[in-house]
Amino acid sequence: MSPTNGTFTLINADRLWGTLMEMACIGAGKAGGSNRQALTDADRDGRDLFVRWAREAGCSIAIDEVGNIFARMDGRDPSLPPILSGSHLDTQATGGRFDGVFGVLAALEAVRVIAEQGIEHDHPIEVVCWTNEEGCRFAPAMLGSGVVSGVYDTEFAYAVVDKDGASFGSELERIGYRGEFPAARRAIAAAIEAHIEQGPILEAEGKTIGVVTGIQGAYWLDIVLTGQSCHAGPTPMNMRRDPWRAASAIIAGALGIADQYAPSARVTIGDMKAEPGSRNTVPERLTFPVDIRHPDASTLEEMVAKLRALVERASVSARLEHEIKQIWHMPATRFDEQLVDLIEREAGELGYSYQRIVSGAGHDSLHTAQFAPTAMIFVPCEDGLSHNEAEAARYEDIAAGANVLLRTIIRAAQNSQQQDS
Amino acid sequence: MSPTNGTFTLINADRLWGTLMEMACIGAGKAGGSNRQALTDADRDGRDLFVRWAREAGCSIAIDEVGNIFARMDGRDPSLPPILSGSHLDTQATGGRFDGVFGVLAALEAVRVIAEQGIEHDHPIEVVCWTNEEGCRFAPAMLGSGVVSGVYDTEFAYAVVDKDGASFGSELERIGYRGEFPAARRAIAAAIEAHIEQGPILEAEGKTIGVVTGIQGAYWLDIVLTGQSCHAGPTPMNMRRDPWRAASAIIAGALGIADQYAPSARVTIGDMKAEPGSRNTVPERLTFPVDIRHPDASTLEEMVAKLRALVERASVSARLEHEIKQIWHMPATRFDEQLVDLIEREAGELGYSYQRIVSGAGHDSLHTAQFAPTAMIFVPCEDGLSHNEAEAARYEDIAAGANVLLRTIIRAAQNSQQQDS
Repeated sequence: MSPTNGTFTLINADRLWGTLMEMACIGAGKAGGSNRQALTDADRDGRDLFVRWAREAGCSIAIDEVGNIFARMDGRDPSLPPILSGSHLDTQATGGRFDGVFGVLAALEAVRVIAEQGIEHDHPIEVVCWTNEEGCRFAPAMLGSGVVSGVYDTEFAYAVVDKDGASFGSELERIGYRGEFPAARRAIAAAIEAHIEQGPILEAEGKTIGVVTGIQGAYWLDIVLTGQSCHAGPTPMNMRRDPWRAASAIIAGALGIADQYAPSARVTIGDMKAEPGSRNTVPERLTFPVDIRHPDASTLEEMVAKLRALVERASVSARLEHEIKQIWHMPATRFDEQLVDLIEREAGELGYSYQRIVSGAGHDSLHTAQFAPTAMIFVPCEDGLSHNEAEAARYEDIAAGANVLLRTIIRAAQNSQQQDS
Repeated sequence: MSPTNGTFTLINADRLWGTLMEMACIGAGKAGGSNRQALTDADRDGRDLFVRWAREAGCSIAIDEVGNIFARMDGRDPSLPPILSGSHLDTQATGGRFDGVFGVLAALEAVRVIAEQGIEHDHPIEVVCWTNEEGCRFAPAMLGSGVVSGVYDTEFAYAVVDKDGASFGSELERIGYRGEFPAARRAIAAAIEAHIEQGPILEAEGKTIGVVTGIQGAYWLDIVLTGQSCHAGPTPMNMRRDPWRAASAIIAGALGIADQYAPSARVTIGDMKAEPGSRNTVPERLTFPVDIRHPDASTLEEMVAKLRALVERASVSARLEHEIKQIWHMPATRFDEQLVDLIEREAGELGYSYQRIVSGAGHDSLHTAQFAPTAMIFVPCEDGLSHNEAEAARYEDIAAGANVLLRTIIRAAQNSQQQDS
């Protein structure tokens, strides 16, 4: 699987794996994963460790107003816009050892190798650690990169509170990561994020590298169907206004819409609330979320329109009131074609099996793509499992992904006049 | 609507209505209803009021081991088995003013009229107040009548605890209603229960009296469908094991089974639990109750068999594990034909519109029917609403139901040799 070291500059896989395992011990969970939710003491300790490692690798550290960390290693021309590579160190409450962490530490390993081997580069290289990618403590997710891209402003981020009422701003201050560097767009030559796939495709296809061409667009909708509650015994079926008459058709139909736009479409009904929720009472109201995704923006709109029409039709037919609330929209994102081509070429030259893939999950790259050439590198994870302490990735795949990242960073960091040599 | 007083012995409707409203003030709710959950202080106060009224009407009081109250007025032959009439005074947490209370106080009003007018009768007449019909504080419901009928034993009832850990036995003792009278079957000449319909049929049909021929059989099943949770974005639809694929088909199909056996069948899905219940995660598990009812026992079994087959088929097709748990079964009950005929005749002679009807809800009569000739009299309630503080019944309908009850008790209480005069 691994190409020989004679031909290519490669990362030190043992060292990378070691840093991953050491980071996992900070906020270690009970089942092999980690709990380093954003701006907790564990997140601070993880950040401190990263900063120490980055300084030891020769980087200078800049921390911006929302706690994003940029560990910079200058090249021949410090005036050139940097190559940005990294991800996030915060985790879900029952997070794994790789989600986010792999992208940060693979980029750090790349910088170590570049420094150690004295590999010449023109552009500065910055390893980035974005604040609060997960969003499980402070919603919305991808908040740090969102402020930098301009989707959210700094004051909005500071005011976000967790479920105990602690604010993002005060917690950021408390852990000592409220910096001075402006949390704003600036010129970035390329943004490259390595990540575990968090899905089952690469594993199923037997591929080592996913060359990510973009991120699916997604809508989060809440559907509310209101009928009339009544006792389960006395009321004849034809006198009921039972929201399940519509909900069962809507759910089957929504999954059918995803089937119709296979293989790229996704529809998920993650939850269901029945009110009053009593075994022997017809529910007055059903409320359920629909997560609907497609990589192509216009196809996604078409899917949503079909779902809306279905909800309308089914509700009228069952004599229900209905409401469709839009909770969130993540626009479909296409990554930079040249950067995608470069990653694909490097994967091929390194001899890894690879395929193009669309990310189903959101990542900080969604935000950098709004103002900088962006792309991502995926590696397989076991059973596609993520956001779970049992999340696992193979040593060989982690090494392969980091090697592709290293090579891509080296290429991208050459002045464009000298590139594509 | 009301027949003239010249021809028939009638109840005092104003007095009955007054006692209903006075009882409603004990444990009065915020929205016009009552909260007299079983064995609370409010339940004790309601019982105390009933016992005082019954003594004032000339009754002797017997309280059995599980707190059921029997207020007895002897007739010409105290050795004859009694005519039992009543219902329950306990309510839901947000209970109405009529559910149960109407049956107890209409029977008490009947006894008052019989005593005042010196109406001769052979059998003793007992007004019964059953303990814990509602079951909302101490499950199962209909516990007091269940012990008497032998479905549950006394020790079982004593051991039942509420959600705060208080036991039925200790609470019964605390409110002073643990009596000495055996909670056991004995000879009963007839058991007649008046009740609001708790459904919309009589109102929709414009009928004043429901001549209840029996109680629907019911099964409470829990269906558990287990697939595999995964992230809503990355996992392609055809690689998912989404429990909704089966649940949507099962719910639509279960409602379809009820339609197929219309108009008597009922199917209700009162709740739904999705685990882990996250908007952007395909649920690993869906758990939902199915309440399935029909008045005919063999038809009910047929419906349940069809549902089981449907669950099996849908789960296999969606590659899910499934489990069907039986939580409760209420056997279909047919009331005593002679008693049903008698009620129908009395309703007709009094000039009220009436129709035969099957009770969709369970009542204490379900238990008395196991060892005594039993029947029920229904009156309409507004919009079929019950288990709700807004529960309402019309003065005229309450009076009509009580008059039919009075006449039926008088007839049933005559020695059979002299009956049908």
